[in-house]
Amino acid sequence: MKGIRIVDGLQYCNWSEEIFRQLRAGGVAAVHVTIAYHEDLQETIRNIAAWNRRFERFPGLIFAGRTAADIDAAAAQGRTAIFFGCQNCSPIGDDIGLIEICHQLGIRFMQLSYNNQSLLASGCYEGEDSGITRMGRQAIREMNRVGMAIDMSHSAARSTLQAIELSDRPIAITHANPASWHPARRNKSDEVLRALAESGGMLGLSLYPHHLQGGSGCSIESFCDMVARTAELMGAERIGFGSDLCQDQPDWVVAWMRNGRWTRDSDYGEGSAEAAGFPAQPQWFRDNRDFPGLLEGLRAAGFSKADIVGIAGGNWYDFFRTSFGPSSDMI
Amino acid sequence: MKGIRIVDGLQYCNWSEEIFRQLRAGGVAAVHVTIAYHEDLQETIRNIAAWNRRFERFPGLIFAGRTAADIDAAAAQGRTAIFFGCQNCSPIGDDIGLIEICHQLGIRFMQLSYNNQSLLASGCYEGEDSGITRMGRQAIREMNRVGMAIDMSHSAARSTLQAIELSDRPIAITHANPASWHPARRNKSDEVLRALAESGGMLGLSLYPHHLQGGSGCSIESFCDMVARTAELMGAERIGFGSDLCQDQPDWVVAWMRNGRWTRDSDYGEGSAEAAGFPAQPQWFRDNRDFPGLLEGLRAAGFSKADIVGIAGGNWYDFFRTSFGPSSDMI
Repeated sequence: MKGIRIVDGLQYCNWSEEIFRQLRAGGVAAVHVTIAYHEDLQETIRNIAAWNRRFERFPGLIFAGRTAADIDAAAAQGRTAIFFGCQNCSPIGDDIGLIEICHQLGIRFMQLSYNNQSLLASGCYEGEDSGITRMGRQAIREMNRVGMAIDMSHSAARSTLQAIELSDRPIAITHANPASWHPARRNKSDEVLRALAESGGMLGLSLYPHHLQGGSGCSIESFCDMVARTAELMGAERIGFGSDLCQDQPDWVVAWMRNGRWTRDSDYGEGSAEAAGFPAQPQWFRDNRDFPGLLEGLRAAGFSKADIVGIAGGNWYDFFRTSFGPSSDMI
Repeated sequence: MKGIRIVDGLQYCNWSEEIFRQLRAGGVAAVHVTIAYHEDLQETIRNIAAWNRRFERFPGLIFAGRTAADIDAAAAQGRTAIFFGCQNCSPIGDDIGLIEICHQLGIRFMQLSYNNQSLLASGCYEGEDSGITRMGRQAIREMNRVGMAIDMSHSAARSTLQAIELSDRPIAITHANPASWHPARRNKSDEVLRALAESGGMLGLSLYPHHLQGGSGCSIESFCDMVARTAELMGAERIGFGSDLCQDQPDWVVAWMRNGRWTRDSDYGEGSAEAAGFPAQPQWFRDNRDFPGLLEGLRAAGFSKADIVGIAGGNWYDFFRTSFGPSSDMI
């Protein structure tokens, strides 16, 4: 499994030199990192400025990724390309023109909602899912135009199916698993996964314990068997990793993700009042150094070398290549 | 009809000394003025600063209204109390704490949505109405707590019915008419009006031509007959005026109301591409000086003096008295 490029469809670590070195040790050529959960544009820009400082401090380990060619460059140079994404549309607020601004700032993925109703779509924790809103339809067209990949990881099912339908370009669910394997609210129905695959979209399979059968105690065999069944459902070329790794984050961060500023009560999301913090990672995926072992697990589950190369990073490479440029560049 | 206090439940004029003098000439003791359609908090605060300059320039004509007692003061002093309100929840964004901040800044009404889906509720122009969102439920509780009146004038029906149900304090529809009289999308069904009345809420009857049967050509007799039928439906103590007077506004203002920053297409709302601007006011209600004539119309339609006093301003007075203080002050 040496030399296989890893592209991870989502991480939100408490970034440090140690983690950047682990990315290299794990063979991660590119990672999509979250830079906003509830942040508005100004706050998101501050998060980009913090990344600019990291790029300046660790030029031998990381650099800002903008196109699929940066994955090639990263692999050739032994570095990791960092691609920005937002898990919410909070940075654009009610301003359609800010989608292009976000793209100009290097943001390549944007969820149409996080857990709650947004101005664009319904989140998976809402009691009702009214689908894509009036502004959402405008936003999808604009994201298609500028080359901002639409991510529906936290959106509700009907909104997701409508986004797939309305978008002229394939969309992504960067971090989630099939609900048929583990019926978490954040995991996705076969109907959604089938529609995603048929439209040429991508699913990033999650290693976040709340998305795993058995949680932190999930075995690598169970996970890799789920990957095999998802490949049967969607096609092996429609899946990759989206580990949702939240390494070294203090627990107040998960409280921020869930509660933002929208509630005076406490929302525990996928956790509970008794287990409000980040769950422990499974022993076989504690950090980025465990990717090679995961690829071995896929081989043990019967995947071909070609499929493993695709799932590890090749499929995301293809998605990045066709998703991040303006639609006018596409034939 | 001399000496009857007028309280207007909504205006959005291009404010000037001339209009402030017309308010006085019409006997308007208080008016709820819109200070935000799509403005965020910073922009809303700038609009308040502009009002602060008007209060400074015209102290003999207007002052900032905060409680029902300011209506008494205005009437005693021959001035007009200006109450602030927002036709959207855009000033609070995703931050529940900004509701109290808005109240501290003098804002006394806030719509849970304008025409589109908001973070709190669905607008009447959305194809789907999913009701009050998770954040919306939090916001209603917080508005109840601090004394921010909930206004559902532009919200969709199901959202409105849920807001009436969820709110512990009566809510308002500050500017709309019964759809049974004129089936405009912004006008309200008998079901909504009945629920509003039963909960002790208030309807401000609109004089905006798109809300009138026959539009700009609507007769005062038709309007006053509609008022009589609405009083039969809701009770005469549950209605007032909410003229929606947009005097002296340039047409780009109505384009801003409808399009904000959310669309690259043109949305014409209640107008059309052929008639995109503000419609002409009916001849019998061109500006605030026409209120006394309107009260004569109500008398001609058979209303008692007591009912006219209530509809003209007394009913809004009662609503203001019980709506703008903290819930802890209420028994």
